[in-house]
Amino acid sequence: MLVEGKHYRTIWPNKALNGVTVIDQTYLPFEFKLRELTSLDEVVEAIKFMRVRGAPLIGVTGAYGIAIALTKNSTNQSLIEAGKKLIDSRPTAVNLSWAVNLVSDKLIMEPIENRVSVAWVLANKLADEDIETNQSIGEIGFNVIRKVKKSRINILTHCNAGWLATIDHGTALSPIYKAFKEGLDIHVWVDETRPRNQGMNLTAWELGQESIPHTVITDNAGGLLMQRGEVDLVIVGADRISTDGNVCNKIGTYLKAIAAKTHNIPFYVAAPLSTVDLSYHGENNLFDIECRDEEEILKVKGMDASNNLTEVKIGYSSAYNPAFDITPAKYISKIICEKGIYEPSDIGETLK
Amino acid sequence: MLVEGKHYRTIWPNKALNGVTVIDQTYLPFEFKLRELTSLDEVVEAIKFMRVRGAPLIGVTGAYGIAIALTKNSTNQSLIEAGKKLIDSRPTAVNLSWAVNLVSDKLIMEPIENRVSVAWVLANKLADEDIETNQSIGEIGFNVIRKVKKSRINILTHCNAGWLATIDHGTALSPIYKAFKEGLDIHVWVDETRPRNQGMNLTAWELGQESIPHTVITDNAGGLLMQRGEVDLVIVGADRISTDGNVCNKIGTYLKAIAAKTHNIPFYVAAPLSTVDLSYHGENNLFDIECRDEEEILKVKGMDASNNLTEVKIGYSSAYNPAFDITPAKYISKIICEKGIYEPSDIGETLK
Repeated sequence: MLVEGKHYRTIWPNKALNGVTVIDQTYLPFEFKLRELTSLDEVVEAIKFMRVRGAPLIGVTGAYGIAIALTKNSTNQSLIEAGKKLIDSRPTAVNLSWAVNLVSDKLIMEPIENRVSVAWVLANKLADEDIETNQSIGEIGFNVIRKVKKSRINILTHCNAGWLATIDHGTALSPIYKAFKEGLDIHVWVDETRPRNQGMNLTAWELGQESIPHTVITDNAGGLLMQRGEVDLVIVGADRISTDGNVCNKIGTYLKAIAAKTHNIPFYVAAPLSTVDLSYHGENNLFDIECRDEEEILKVKGMDASNNLTEVKIGYSSAYNPAFDITPAKYISKIICEKGIYEPSDIGETLK
Repeated sequence: MLVEGKHYRTIWPNKALNGVTVIDQTYLPFEFKLRELTSLDEVVEAIKFMRVRGAPLIGVTGAYGIAIALTKNSTNQSLIEAGKKLIDSRPTAVNLSWAVNLVSDKLIMEPIENRVSVAWVLANKLADEDIETNQSIGEIGFNVIRKVKKSRINILTHCNAGWLATIDHGTALSPIYKAFKEGLDIHVWVDETRPRNQGMNLTAWELGQESIPHTVITDNAGGLLMQRGEVDLVIVGADRISTDGNVCNKIGTYLKAIAAKTHNIPFYVAAPLSTVDLSYHGENNLFDIECRDEEEILKVKGMDASNNLTEVKIGYSSAYNPAFDITPAKYISKIICEKGIYEPSDIGETLK
């Protein structure tokens, strides 16, 4: 999508095929900075430190990470160790292990001398497929949005499942971009999404770059807006979906889902089918929910009066920082995927 | 309660009876600063700028504001204008208009020459009564907490309804202080409470000063904690209560109430009876919910690396900042007041 009028993807290979360039999302919305990643350690650091984030994007970044690792050393051991390091860098996003395992399983079958070139081809292919997937999600989701019979359609979203979370177009925001392009009068309520403020920092920024009307709200405000009839539908992304439609997504998603149900507001999840974890079934999470450093809550980065990007300490107590929660299938109206729109409970069937 | 081991109230009259001293809460938890207010304008500014905040405290501050105004000019006109200015300074907290009207109605009947001394007596009396009220709330609420049959009792609270929101002891936190004093093993989950972070800044600070175990969480995290059984009860304060038990409180309260109901977790409101607005009945709010400046969302204050209190800009979009929401009576288990514990729907009856 557009950044100051110019089209970008979130990640692309260097011409020399020795690394990738990414948008360093930790500087947004303050500065638009690109960053080269030319070693496995740099890729792992970028995922861990959330320079790249969003389930689909870190999946593709993982695939590029394999290519970068093999470019230095294409032995079996190098391939296996790279895969392990990458998967461990963010435990919750199933797309990461999905993408890394997908390319690793293919590459291990290749003769060592072919692996580097095949790895880059596979990673590029995943990136292109992500874009196609998201365009399909956009088309399908657009058909949901345009059925809302309102002169102005108010959509609430949480966290960032926009193009910055993918290679391009986004998942939850892809239908919104499509709807805007098709001329629907839409307005997006953007949850700021503490503690890392991906809503305020990323979603608001990317919607602004595309001139889509939007307003930032605190994570606390959604209940009141729903109470007042100021939310027509909710669309969020997903980090992991169980085969029976329970959705692991950014912390706070669950509270919005309960509130939407209470007010009979449709609550949609938009995600590629690669987000479905075939080993995950039932409401009880069988995987550990990533718990991140308390410093994410206790410190905040912003521009000071002299326009220097500054980190300030805002809290002094100990803090607990789980990064995700689980929204049970019963709170989800439908799941929008690249192949169609599904009852949550049927999502596992689509993969059989 | 204690600040570095020394007992404080949040507001007290100067010896010369020409003004009051308050704890300037806008500097907490970074600095503990006292501030003298010796004119009506200073009192109004302190309420508006939330140097003093919390429904009970701004009620009493309003009463002291009347005394300060009359000390300068004790005519009817001065009394009436002071009352109007004070009530307009925070429109949602019913205690403010309650306290200002209570003292004004009495003072207008007094001969002009008596008004100053009577005004100070009335304000001091309100302050003392607030403390008694909160101690009663503490006793009654303690009886609720001690019935939880858990070795460690996890209580979630939103915003600050602690002693900093009152003259002393607090409303929602008063039962917690009492429970801790009585030796119960309690732990408090403190919602940070965006946008002004009263949970992280004030509740965590005052619990810390009293050595009560607590952990700050983002406003987003409560749903997950409830899902996991890590919240045994919720206690919050109130800014305004309808005669049929609908509760206007800090934005975000409603989301926690819905989640608590979903998980069968008791949800208590603790507030003095002066919070009940006899003119407010039914779920639809008949008063305007205060909408505050978007800058409260877009800027944050904290300590920079050189330990200077610095404000940083964290967001660049437009933002919408309603300060309160309404929790319908059906989500509230009981309302804890100084005279007893009530079914929300019966709360208006207690005042007849």
